[in-house]
Amino acid sequence: MALTDRVQQILSWYSSENPGTQTNLVRLLNHGKLAGTGKLVILPVDQGFEHGPVRSFAPNPDAYDPDYHFQLALDAGCNAYAAPLGSIEAGASKFAGQVPLILKVNNSDTLAKIDQPCSALTASVEDALRLGCVAIGYTIYPGSGQRNQMYQDLRDLTIEAKRKGLVVVVWSYPRGAGLSKQGETAVDVCTYAATIAAQLGAHIIKVKPPTAHVEQPEHQKVFEKHGLKIESLADRTRLVVQSCFGGKRVLIFSGGEAKGETDVLKEVQELATGGSFGSIMGRNAFQRKRGDAVKLLTDVMDIYKKVS
Amino acid sequence: MALTDRVQQILSWYSSENPGTQTNLVRLLNHGKLAGTGKLVILPVDQGFEHGPVRSFAPNPDAYDPDYHFQLALDAGCNAYAAPLGSIEAGASKFAGQVPLILKVNNSDTLAKIDQPCSALTASVEDALRLGCVAIGYTIYPGSGQRNQMYQDLRDLTIEAKRKGLVVVVWSYPRGAGLSKQGETAVDVCTYAATIAAQLGAHIIKVKPPTAHVEQPEHQKVFEKHGLKIESLADRTRLVVQSCFGGKRVLIFSGGEAKGETDVLKEVQELATGGSFGSIMGRNAFQRKRGDAVKLLTDVMDIYKKVS
Amino acid sequence: MALTDRVQQILSWYSSENPGTQTNLVRLLNHGKLAGTGKLVILPVDQGFEHGPVRSFAPNPDAYDPDYHFQLALDAGCNAYAAPLGSIEAGASKFAGQVPLILKVNNSDTLAKIDQPCSALTASVEDALRLGCVAIGYTIYPGSGQRNQMYQDLRDLTIEAKRKGLVVVVWSYPRGAGLSKQGETAVDVCTYAATIAAQLGAHIIKVKPPTAHVEQPEHQKVFEKHGLKIESLADRTRLVVQSCFGGKRVLIFSGGEAKGETDVLKEVQELATGGSFGSIMGRNAFQRKRGDAVKLLTDVMDIYKKVS
Amino acid sequence: MALTDRVQQILSWYSSENPGTQTNLVRLLNHGKLAGTGKLVILPVDQGFEHGPVRSFAPNPDAYDPDYHFQLALDAGCNAYAAPLGSIEAGASKFAGQVPLILKVNNSDTLAKIDQPCSALTASVEDALRLGCVAIGYTIYPGSGQRNQMYQDLRDLTIEAKRKGLVVVVWSYPRGAGLSKQGETAVDVCTYAATIAAQLGAHIIKVKPPTAHVEQPEHQKVFEKHGLKIESLADRTRLVVQSCFGGKRVLIFSGGEAKGETDVLKEVQELATGGSFGSIMGRNAFQRKRGDAVKLLTDVMDIYKKVS
Amino acid sequence: MALTDRVQQILSWYSSENPGTQTNLVRLLNHGKLAGTGKLVILPVDQGFEHGPVRSFAPNPDAYDPDYHFQLALDAGCNAYAAPLGSIEAGASKFAGQVPLILKVNNSDTLAKIDQPCSALTASVEDALRLGCVAIGYTIYPGSGQRNQMYQDLRDLTIEAKRKGLVVVVWSYPRGAGLSKQGETAVDVCTYAATIAAQLGAHIIKVKPPTAHVEQPEHQKVFEKHGLKIESLADRTRLVVQSCFGGKRVLIFSGGEAKGETDVLKEVQELATGGSFGSIMGRNAFQRKRGDAVKLLTDVMDIYKKVS
Repeated sequence: MALTDRVQQILSWYSSENPGTQTNLVRLLNHGKLAGTGKLVILPVDQGFEHGPVRSFAPNPDAYDPDYHFQLALDAGCNAYAAPLGSIEAGASKFAGQVPLILKVNNSDTLAKIDQPCSALTASVEDALRLGCVAIGYTIYPGSGQRNQMYQDLRDLTIEAKRKGLVVVVWSYPRGAGLSKQGETAVDVCTYAATIAAQLGAHIIKVKPPTAHVEQPEHQKVFEKHGLKIESLADRTRLVVQSCFGGKRVLIFSGGEAKGETDVLKEVQELATGGSFGSIMGRNAFQRKRGDAVKLLTDVMDIYKKVS
Repeated sequence: MALTDRVQQILSWYSSENPGTQTNLVRLLNHGKLAGTGKLVILPVDQGFEHGPVRSFAPNPDAYDPDYHFQLALDAGCNAYAAPLGSIEAGASKFAGQVPLILKVNNSDTLAKIDQPCSALTASVEDALRLGCVAIGYTIYPGSGQRNQMYQDLRDLTIEAKRKGLVVVVWSYPRGAGLSKQGETAVDVCTYAATIAAQLGAHIIKVKPPTAHVEQPEHQKVFEKHGLKIESLADRTRLVVQSCFGGKRVLIFSGGEAKGETDVLKEVQELATGGSFGSIMGRNAFQRKRGDAVKLLTDVMDIYKKVS
Repeated sequence: MALTDRVQQILSWYSSENPGTQTNLVRLLNHGKLAGTGKLVILPVDQGFEHGPVRSFAPNPDAYDPDYHFQLALDAGCNAYAAPLGSIEAGASKFAGQVPLILKVNNSDTLAKIDQPCSALTASVEDALRLGCVAIGYTIYPGSGQRNQMYQDLRDLTIEAKRKGLVVVVWSYPRGAGLSKQGETAVDVCTYAATIAAQLGAHIIKVKPPTAHVEQPEHQKVFEKHGLKIESLADRTRLVVQSCFGGKRVLIFSGGEAKGETDVLKEVQELATGGSFGSIMGRNAFQRKRGDAVKLLTDVMDIYKKVS
Repeated sequence: MALTDRVQQILSWYSSENPGTQTNLVRLLNHGKLAGTGKLVILPVDQGFEHGPVRSFAPNPDAYDPDYHFQLALDAGCNAYAAPLGSIEAGASKFAGQVPLILKVNNSDTLAKIDQPCSALTASVEDALRLGCVAIGYTIYPGSGQRNQMYQDLRDLTIEAKRKGLVVVVWSYPRGAGLSKQGETAVDVCTYAATIAAQLGAHIIKVKPPTAHVEQPEHQKVFEKHGLKIESLADRTRLVVQSCFGGKRVLIFSGGEAKGETDVLKEVQELATGGSFGSIMGRNAFQRKRGDAVKLLTDVMDIYKKVS
Repeated sequence: MALTDRVQQILSWYSSENPGTQTNLVRLLNHGKLAGTGKLVILPVDQGFEHGPVRSFAPNPDAYDPDYHFQLALDAGCNAYAAPLGSIEAGASKFAGQVPLILKVNNSDTLAKIDQPCSALTASVEDALRLGCVAIGYTIYPGSGQRNQMYQDLRDLTIEAKRKGLVVVVWSYPRGAGLSKQGETAVDVCTYAATIAAQLGAHIIKVKPPTAHVEQPEHQKVFEKHGLKIESLADRTRLVVQSCFGGKRVLIFSGGEAKGETDVLKEVQELATGGSFGSIMGRNAFQRKRGDAVKLLTDVMDIYKKVS
């Protein structure tokens, strides 16, 4: 399909990238029900790895089968489906060319006790290419003592991905000895997490919805001095979007824990109002029965469509 | 031999792999007495390295000679023989082309005290290729603080193995500071271990038979909420098979410590009933006299043949 | 433009470098209002990464947008604009060829608690080349227990940069367990920091303005024995310039925290009198409104022009 | 010379190796007074590095000169001379083609206090090739917490050595936090050490003569249960030979500390009776005057000749 | 110039090296006032890096300029000039081909507190080649817990340097947790340090003048048993020379701290009498005024000339 003005505008922010990467960015933006709007809803399924299979899929046992998620992303009209290596391998050939794929190239589990959080590298750019993916996904934990390792691994992946025409999606989840538990979703920390990912060269950045907590004293002073509004989630979203290159990077928000449909939609409405480019919604999708999941994802997309 | 429907079905789950890897997967599935059934019985002999030679072979001194195990796997009609580098090198030329070989590429010993369990890399994909193997085997210890090192080493081996048409077999044995001793074979941990191996790109996954213990409180809640059945070994096996991509990955179980024939067969019967794709049986095979070992392996295969 | 005598003299100190590197050095020295004088004023913007976006840009929200800084450097007639990967990527195509770019290839943030200071590698020489930069920038923390890692990473970057015709700019900021807080800007430590960067092969070296504190007892003795003058900032600047290969390396000073215009200009005057080759001025530029910033940068350049 | 039946038999155990490696194995087996017998006596001189030059050579100062050892190995008719990089470099050209050389590629010294024993890598396969060596030699310390590092370094060396037609000799010396001092030469530990080296792909394995001590409780039980004979050194040697792939790997024993001629010969007689493939004898050779050393080495060879 | 008998004899000890390396060794031995004698006096200037610029150059401020040292080495007729990367880069083109250069490829500073001493890698073999050097120089600290890292880095540098025809000069300075302060220059430790460097493949070895202290009890026994003479510096030098492959490696001694002319010459006389191949003299040269430095270096060379 031809590019809409909005997609062309977004592309203009990535004018330093190869046509290969620009092409894959267009594939993401021009797929599914939100095609051409500049908004994205992505289905991510890495919970089998991150939390364990039974915790993730017992509520909806059909979801043990990797094919289920490809089909769900297709049926719901998501822009893309994101998952770890094994899941993508399981369906990449069967669903070849039907839905844009994001290969998650690092992952963690809950079995090991690791002092300073750091996910393991579990796939490579070569894997993404051989499996027909449009993007790699990588999680950083700003705040961790293993920060340098993670940023440097990402650096290596990013340069290779860009050289080979892939898009880079970064999950930026602050965590570690440098932060309080509450601080992990503090509004100042979220703005910082978005900036770090952008500076590391990410094309699409995923953060958690920010709370009204402010973690760093230096930031508290600045918030007060400049009277920054952070009361509503929409306000805070606006600040995080602005912090992400003045709005010139695609920034999306995670859906978080499974919850009621009303809560999900209310949160999405605030994010949309605040300027979010979209949502990435896992447990709230695949832990519902297929029909309910498709309906919820459709409602979410409708909200984003309205603000686009 | 032509592919049976079952083998074709199994192959369909690996449709994203190169024909080279698919070919070697067929070689494993179409060899020995279980050829074509989609079930596997594999003879693994790494105990000389893992426990020491005298502990392993004094009960049956013929087994000191590496040739013995090639011949035993052949005589018993196993699908494959798996061993560390030295053992494979000792007989690879003499037995060339007679039995599918799995080169174990990492190993541990009991001489060193290592805080966070992690096997040493002891062979490479290049070794597997020069020795005519169909697969590499790698052990991960989910739960260890060295998790990232292991997963990343496996990532490097896996991408190379797949590029070069080999099959990847992963021994997934939870262990380390993140787990209690009992938790190493807990049913929730076993399901998790199977998923992790699958997500890391393994084609064939080996876990220990799960006990009825549940290790993680978050899992305990889920087991209760959804009334998951874990009383019998067959029940638990069913859950582990399901956790392994809804049954779409070849999952086999280890035989564990040497024990009486009746106990071995009873356990195998439960595993088979629960949907296991087969067994990997070391000490219970090579620590018996050759005749007894062949008979026991034959009985095990018969059980799997019946459920296939 | 033709080379002035001064630029030719400076180039003669870099006669061992490839013509490619010499060419990029000329591009830096012959751009902007100070072109041909042998003096440099550089606009560096890495505070979004190093301190957080809100702390950095709330005083002047236009500065959230990476394009803003390219334009500011252009408007003010700076010799170059220096920034991390993401910022450079954001504008490199739009502003291609309009202002010399320095890609900052390592960065730190304030979220993580790291015992021994060490920035993360966040970009590469290949990035600098694909983005049309004339130089890479790298920060070392002499005094840190991670010294060897940093020097060795810089060694690898430097050899590659020189092979490919780039200029190497080193931020030499003493810090770590080997130094007191006060010692980080002590005059003896500053002279040492400048020398270390020069010995590591840097073409342009950036240090902080030295205070009159002397950190190391061995140095205190030498200062006394030889009656070295360190009372005024100009005196101390002179000593640092001399320590930097007897003045045969381009040495510039950072502007430090945001402060009043008078203070900025007074400090620059002292540095210029002491023989500084220029200044690198971030927060004092982009945290002012555009007009004020252009004016201040112009005043700074005028001071350097007078002493050239 | 044509291959004897015994050498052909030994070669048959290495049938998976390249002709290049087989050729160099023949060069070792067919050189010197024991040529064709399948037995080996090797002169190793790494004590200058491992213990210091004065401790090693003051008893016989001629031995400071590296040429001395090449000549001694030649005069005594040893199968090979083994030494670190510098020693081999010193004489490799002068004695080119006169005696098979084994390049020791890792070494330790007594100056550093290292918690977990691990030798430093000091030479490479490329060095062995450029210096005309037939083999590389590498020391592992099973029982050390640095086990993984050592096994993995050996893995890398071994695959390269085999690719390029060299023989791999492994010194397997248990040591480290996992073992008591007495346990380092315990008979169970020696059998284990021999197996580990064999499994790591070594062609020739060197261990210390085993004592009657049993280190691991699990082994003690097995020794008792199966009534294994370990009273005489010959008995224990037999067990170690058997543990080394049922006798299908060339296994030789070190001579240990300097001692009287009678003691040396008595020990060698026991080793020979127990099936040892030979001895590697350093201090007992080069710390004697040349004539005495040649006589002792000749007597040792005569013992092995008698049992061959 | 044609080779003298002595130079030919020295070359014969390096007969295993490539003609490229032999050529550069000749360039060192055939340059300056000692050309052809087989003796060497080298000017090393790494004190700016190792001790700080002001401590090093305030006594003679002309020495801040890197060109100064090239000219001093030329004027005094030294065999070579050795310095870190930046210093060599500063003058390599201007003085191209006028004096043999040794690029020091690792360095330390006094700003960082590092538990186990280990210099940082600061230059590469490629740097030495592009700058026209005849040799690389590398410092090891035997006795440090980082021994393995250093020996292995040196191994990598050495194999590359030899492949590309460079000479390898090793500064062997015992230091670290394995040694007392006094032990760093103990005579037994010096002999050991010289041997280690030789075994690591060094062509030219630099140690400190040994004191009469004996550090290791095992060595004390050997010194007593064999009645080794270590009273005079000449005696001790003789022992160190002998320990260095029986005198078949070029071994030179450092000049140490700045001191009076008489002391310098007296020490050199003892070293020369004991068989030293020469001296490497930094602070005693460049901290004197140029005229005095040239005179002192000339006197030192005269002493070596007399014993050649």
